[in-house]
Amino acid sequence: MKYKLWYWAEIQGRGEFVRLPMEAAGIAYVDVAREQGSDALVADMQARDRRPPFAPPYLDTGSQVIAQVANILLWLGDRHGLAPEDAATRIWIHEVQLTVTDFVAEVHQVHHPVGTGLYYEDQRPEAARFAEEFREERMPKFLDWFERSVEGEWLAGTRWSYGDTSIFQLVEGLRYMFPRRMAAIEGDYPRLIAIRDRVADLPGIAAYLSSARRIPFNTQGIFRHYPELDAA
Amino acid sequence: MKYKLWYWAEIQGRGEFVRLPMEAAGIAYVDVAREQGSDALVADMQARDRRPPFAPPYLDTGSQVIAQVANILLWLGDRHGLAPEDAATRIWIHEVQLTVTDFVAEVHQVHHPVGTGLYYEDQRPEAARFAEEFREERMPKFLDWFERSVEGEWLAGTRWSYGDTSIFQLVEGLRYMFPRRMAAIEGDYPRLIAIRDRVADLPGIAAYLSSARRIPFNTQGIFRHYPELDAA
Repeated sequence: MKYKLWYWAEIQGRGEFVRLPMEAAGIAYVDVAREQGSDALVADMQARDRRPPFAPPYLDTGSQVIAQVANILLWLGDRHGLAPEDAATRIWIHEVQLTVTDFVAEVHQVHHPVGTGLYYEDQRPEAARFAEEFREERMPKFLDWFERSVEGEWLAGTRWSYGDTSIFQLVEGLRYMFPRRMAAIEGDYPRLIAIRDRVADLPGIAAYLSSARRIPFNTQGIFRHYPELDAA
Repeated sequence: MKYKLWYWAEIQGRGEFVRLPMEAAGIAYVDVAREQGSDALVADMQARDRRPPFAPPYLDTGSQVIAQVANILLWLGDRHGLAPEDAATRIWIHEVQLTVTDFVAEVHQVHHPVGTGLYYEDQRPEAARFAEEFREERMPKFLDWFERSVEGEWLAGTRWSYGDTSIFQLVEGLRYMFPRRMAAIEGDYPRLIAIRDRVADLPGIAAYLSSARRIPFNTQGIFRHYPELDAA
């Protein structure tokens, strides 16, 4: 049976961190809500009684349902060799991914600082305030750490892992969200940009990015471009 | 060699989610900064070149250094039997813990909505705005899900896991942070409160809570009591 990925049909969002390594590795999956609509996702979530996901994305492997991006990637990494063999390095890659999770939470806080259920338009002054700190303090703090964490051509080991596809997505997301800021500081992160480029060149990723399966970034997802929040 | 836990000496914070299962299981560890001061923690972090932690807490096991609360607990769970034997259930408990991580990030956002590097006193109106949504929408949404997730006397399986000690800490933290709100809604969560009580009665936890090792909650940690942010 093909894996079933359940995530919103309209956005890259957190689901993209799961789609990318499956595309890179050629793992067959059905992106269910892309075929049936996001209403089907809502209905599926509501119908799950036992061990229900708190939120999408979640992966139905046929024998169990796994939610939380980092958890899905940990499982896929073990099952499909998408992480280094060495046990200590697998824990390390999970640690990197959990730091991606933390960073993505702050990316979300940029446009939703005072209300997760409100629209961005209802919290624009607060968003502008957080965005300034995010651009000037948080982005460099996280990116410096990711840059320091790169051990070679890839984050760790001799081939790509799910950590590398996550770095790709972070760079792409930040380029879309903060083009002026990223243009100003990208030069400080040559290892991350090199990983971004290597991931883009993986045959599975190149095919995916040129397909209709790759949803364009938009202002419904996690990485959102509001020009007024960007600055060099 | 005893494990070395590195975390701030002055607060429960995120480190408490690691201290609790080690105390419950009687795992020997040195809480280094409690002995040497938080300056020693800062110095240790700065001295780590390879695979540096992004932030505390981190655990030096003697053979590797592991950061990120959920990652530390996953490793301790495997090594010390602090999670159910069944592989699918271990993934599930990790999923619960990662949802605790998400919840704790929002708890932090309550007092730091527009600046992680600013003081609460510099963002009080914004905090009041987010706190209202948090109390009325986010707390019930998360607690409902945790309540639904309880499968018996414990989250899963026939004995406590690190997921249960985390539920204990969530309940205790919310009682300290939002006493009026928790008093109003606690009755909706009998399974979570029962887990809280069972964890408190574990011999290792009872001894810990009555010792000087348990740092009192305070307004430097993650769960902070600001009366103006609380309401029934």
